[in-house]
Formats: sequence, C-alpha cells, structure tokens
Amino acid sequence: MIVSYAELAGTLERALAALGLEPDRAPRCAQLIADSTRDGVPSHGLNLFPRVASMIRRGAIDPRGRAIRVAGRGALERWDGRRGVGALNAFDAMQAAIAGARASGIACVALGNTNHWMRGGSYGWQAADAGAIALCWTNTLPNLPPWGAATPRIGNNPLVVAVPRANGHVVLDMAMSQFSYGALASYRARGERLPVAGGFDRDGRLTDDPAAIEASRRPLPIGFWKGSGLAIVLDIIAAALAGGRATHEIGADPEQETGLSQVFIAIDPASLEGVAIDRVADAVVASVQARYPGERTLAARRQHLQQGIEVDDEAWTIARRCASA
Amino acid sequence: MIVSYAELAGTLERALAALGLEPDRAPRCAQLIADSTRDGVPSHGLNLFPRVASMIRRGAIDPRGRAIRVAGRGALERWDGRRGVGALNAFDAMQAAIAGARASGIACVALGNTNHWMRGGSYGWQAADAGAIALCWTNTLPNLPPWGAATPRIGNNPLVVAVPRANGHVVLDMAMSQFSYGALASYRARGERLPVAGGFDRDGRLTDDPAAIEASRRPLPIGFWKGSGLAIVLDIIAAALAGGRATHEIGADPEQETGLSQVFIAIDPASLEGVAIDRVADAVVASVQARYPGERTLAARRQHLQQGIEVDDEAWTIARRCASA
Repeated sequence: MIVSYAELAGTLERALAALGLEPDRAPRCAQLIADSTRDGVPSHGLNLFPRVASMIRRGAIDPRGRAIRVAGRGALERWDGRRGVGALNAFDAMQAAIAGARASGIACVALGNTNHWMRGGSYGWQAADAGAIALCWTNTLPNLPPWGAATPRIGNNPLVVAVPRANGHVVLDMAMSQFSYGALASYRARGERLPVAGGFDRDGRLTDDPAAIEASRRPLPIGFWKGSGLAIVLDIIAAALAGGRATHEIGADPEQETGLSQVFIAIDPASLEGVAIDRVADAVVASVQARYPGERTLAARRQHLQQGIEVDDEAWTIARRCASA
Repeated sequence: MIVSYAELAGTLERALAALGLEPDRAPRCAQLIADSTRDGVPSHGLNLFPRVASMIRRGAIDPRGRAIRVAGRGALERWDGRRGVGALNAFDAMQAAIAGARASGIACVALGNTNHWMRGGSYGWQAADAGAIALCWTNTLPNLPPWGAATPRIGNNPLVVAVPRANGHVVLDMAMSQFSYGALASYRARGERLPVAGGFDRDGRLTDDPAAIEASRRPLPIGFWKGSGLAIVLDIIAAALAGGRATHEIGADPEQETGLSQVFIAIDPASLEGVAIDRVADAVVASVQARYPGERTLAARRQHLQQGIEVDDEAWTIARRCASA
C-alpha cells in the first residue's frame, strides 16, 4: 500500500491521540514516526508503532509522561524521562541540549527512565536543522554478544553524530551490531546472503547467512572487539550520567524494553567566531568521492515525498484501526 | 633489549631536551611516550620517537610551540597548536577541557594546527585519572579508502572514550581501520594470518593476508560502511571547530603528517549530584563477562613495571644517541 506523507502523519496523529497522547504532543510524535518512514527507515518508524501502541496499552509507556530536569550543573543536565514516550523524550532532551549549546557552546542532557527512541537519526537531523552539531546515543536491552562471548550481554547501543550543512546535513546513525535483526529478516525474506559476514552460526563460524545468525542470536559487533568495546563504554556513560539503567538491568524481551538511558550532546558551531562548517563539510564530502552519512536518507526522502511511501500492511492496518477507534 | 620504565622515561627526557623541548616540557612529553610503551602500545610510544625527532630536526614540528586559546564561548574553546609537539598539545588541550568540565559540567577544546598525538588513549587515561569522562578524536592523513572506493581518501581518525573507575578506568582507543599498518606488519613478520578479514587484496577480495593488504593499500574500515561514515563526520567536526585542516588537506606522506585537527570533550561526573560512576562501571564490567576496554592496558602496565619493557632496538638506539648528543 502506498500512502502520502500527509496521510501517514495524519493517521499517526489521530492514532497517538486515541492512545492518550495530549493534543500538544501527538502531532510531534506523529511527525517523528512519519519522518523516519519517509526517510527510508520504516523499521524504526511506522513498523515500530504497533509495539509502542501495545506498550502504552499495557502501561509500560506512560503516554502523558513528560521528561523533566532533575539535576544540573552549568551545561550538564540530568533528566528523568518518567517512562514517557521515548521519541518525545529524546526530542525534548535534544532541544534542551541545543538551547544549552546556544548559551554555552556545548551542552549535554543525560536522560534516564525513558523508552525506545525509535530512529536515533531523528535527533541528529533535529540538531542539524537547528544549526547544531550533535552526538547522542542510547543503550538498549542486551541484544548482542560482546566480542569473545556467545550470549547477548551488551546492547547494540546506536550512536548518532550529526553535522549541519546547507547542502544536506551529514548524519551518521550507527548501531554497534553490523546488521539489526530487522535487516537480517529482510535479507532472509528476499532470499539473499548478507553483503559481508554479519555474525556467527550455531557452530561459532562467521557467516553471511542471515537465517543462521537469527538462529544463533550471535550478530557481530562492528569491528569485532572495537564495536563491542564502544557499546560497553557508551552504556556506562549513559547509565551513570542519567542515573538510569545499564543494559544488563534491562529485560531481554523487546516488548518489555523500558527504562533506557541516553546522552544528548549538542555543540553550537556559530558560537565560535569563524567556524565555516558549510565550507568544511562541502569540501570533505567532495573529497571522499564515496557515500557520505545521510546521503541515502535525503534520496529516500525526496523519492517518498514525490512518489508516496510504501507502508507495511500490518503496521498500517494497526495504525488506521487505532486512529478510527 | 629490556629496560626499566625509569630508564626509558629518563632517556626520552634527555633526548627531547636535546631536541629543543624546554625544561618544563621535556619531562611531560617523555612520560607520555614512556607510558604508552609501558602500557603495551610501543607502536604509538617509543617506536614513533624517531619520526618525532626527525620532524623536529626538519622543522615540521616546533619543539617550543605551545598551543594557545584563540577563541571561545562558554565551555567551547578553539586552540591553535602552533605546530608544536602533538602529544604535549593534546595533553594541554585535555587539561583545559577537564578544567572546563569542572566549571561547567561539560567542556570542549578543539585544537587545530597540531601534530600526531601518538597514543590517543593517553588523553583518555589522563581524563579518567582526573575523575573525568572523556571523548576525544583526531583526524589523520588519508590512510584508508572510504567504503566503496579503492584509494585512501579518509583518515583512520582514532576515537577515544574514557570512564574513570577506581578498579581500573574503562578506556576505549579505537582507530577506524580494523588493523593499523603497524599491526599488519607485525602479523606479517610473525607469519600469521589476521584473526578476521582486514582489508582487500589487489583484486578487491576481502582477505586476512596482511601482506596482501599492505600491497593494495586497502585496509578495511571497522564495520565497513559504518566506520567509513564515522571517520568522515569526525573529520568534519574536528576541522570545522578547530579552524584547521581536514584529512584531504593533509599530505599522504607520514613523515610530513602535520597540521592535524582534534577535539577534546570532558564531562565531570562529580558535578551532577548522585552520579555513581564506580558502581555503574563495576556492574557493567562484571555483567559483560568478556574483555572490557582498558583491561589489557592495565595488564600490560603491571607486567612491564614488574619485568621491564622490551624495546625496539632501532628506536631505542636512536633515542639513546639523541639523549647523549
């Protein structure tokens, strides 16, 4: 089924309002979910909506919970997400970090007690649209074996790094697993092998067979020991600064994944005299002569705004049913 | 040849003084180089000393150049490294970031016009020793093909993330290439294959043969497209904030690698009430039941302090000759 962006966002807004999001909140949340879908990341947009709806209905997400500042010194703040909607909490935390960066050059908000932020890249685009550089990350449930182990004990802890640029922001949105379970399922459904080894099979051999990795539950950290180490240290920083949970304290069931910890750092390049971020970014992008982070997002966005967005039938049906409830 | 830490540091101090470093600077620089060697990273310690000496002699590094603050707003500063000794500039920049974090919770120093910082992890250990969380990175000469290209156009841009912990700091020091050229040479010299694919051969096939990768000059970015993207965005941020060079503006000859751009971010966890960094870090490290970043460094440190440090004959000879000049 192909729908327009306006239809997608409108339906999601009505659905979220029906789920209990307040009138000043449902439109923003609908926009974040619709934008991710429009940008070619439906796995972290519309296709996550059914899980959000079910978690709200079960009380795991409080649709009226709003993140509040609970501690701070200077440009560093701790926020309590109060089990609210993850995407809205993340958006609010990044807005506060951007505002802090305008005042202090750099600022950081650590957000605990929150929920899945859906597409992490959203908060990179948000910062870049506001002219800010951003680094942000989240922890997750244990879904990845650390290097040297066979069972999932670390999170894939996505890291987002964003640079504003007039000719298209440069936005990296990178989980610490080489392929997500969603990506593995897509390759398997298409009958394809992975382009590179993506994990271990049940016998501990590296494999490019997506089904073998789904069966072993042993996806590969990016860079083997390196991505494993990065996931560990990002988890510690997020949980400690936010006063929230670390990955090992989060249950292994995705339907129960709640109480996450996140960090949002924003830097305002305009606060330093003479920062030529557009010139530098244009020159680097040109010099690389290869794909830069964010390029495919913009291409998908253009295509989907022109031609409509192919939506997952099941997720779309659930959203429509919810909207007309 | 095996030498004690004291002999290594003392010899380096005399050598650096002979090269023109001032009396208040040579001891610190010697300590940074000796510490890296003691910690099991001679490739970025003593073994880089001959190149530093040669670059000072040729005037590419100014042994008396000191980094100075040239712009700032709030907790964000830009420093000019004035082509000074890279390790000292990086140390000074991190000290300033730590001091800024004590005042503002988080602070950032962007350092341009500097030189190779040798072991990036040094500045992570420095911050952690001071009780601070740190993120820092450097750009480099173009030594890595971006994903999808066959010629080196991005840097391996090491990223360091550090967390202080009473039971041993957690410090990740991670270049964006899966293996450095130094590591490739070591595997080749031992007649070993790499533990995982580390790059492409001349025919564009992934290989674990270190010599084939040295020949093709096509080492692999960690996580394939992911490490490639991270290198690109870190380069833009460093060059733009520092007002310095991006990777494509740095010459391809390691003997001429100068004018680098770096970013140092420090966060003071003690500035937020109730941050239990030791408890969180201990619990995460215990939960992982696998190697954590920094663990091997501490093991190497203990061993080398007890048993002495095996030094590279050529580098040691050059340092000793320089020290007695």
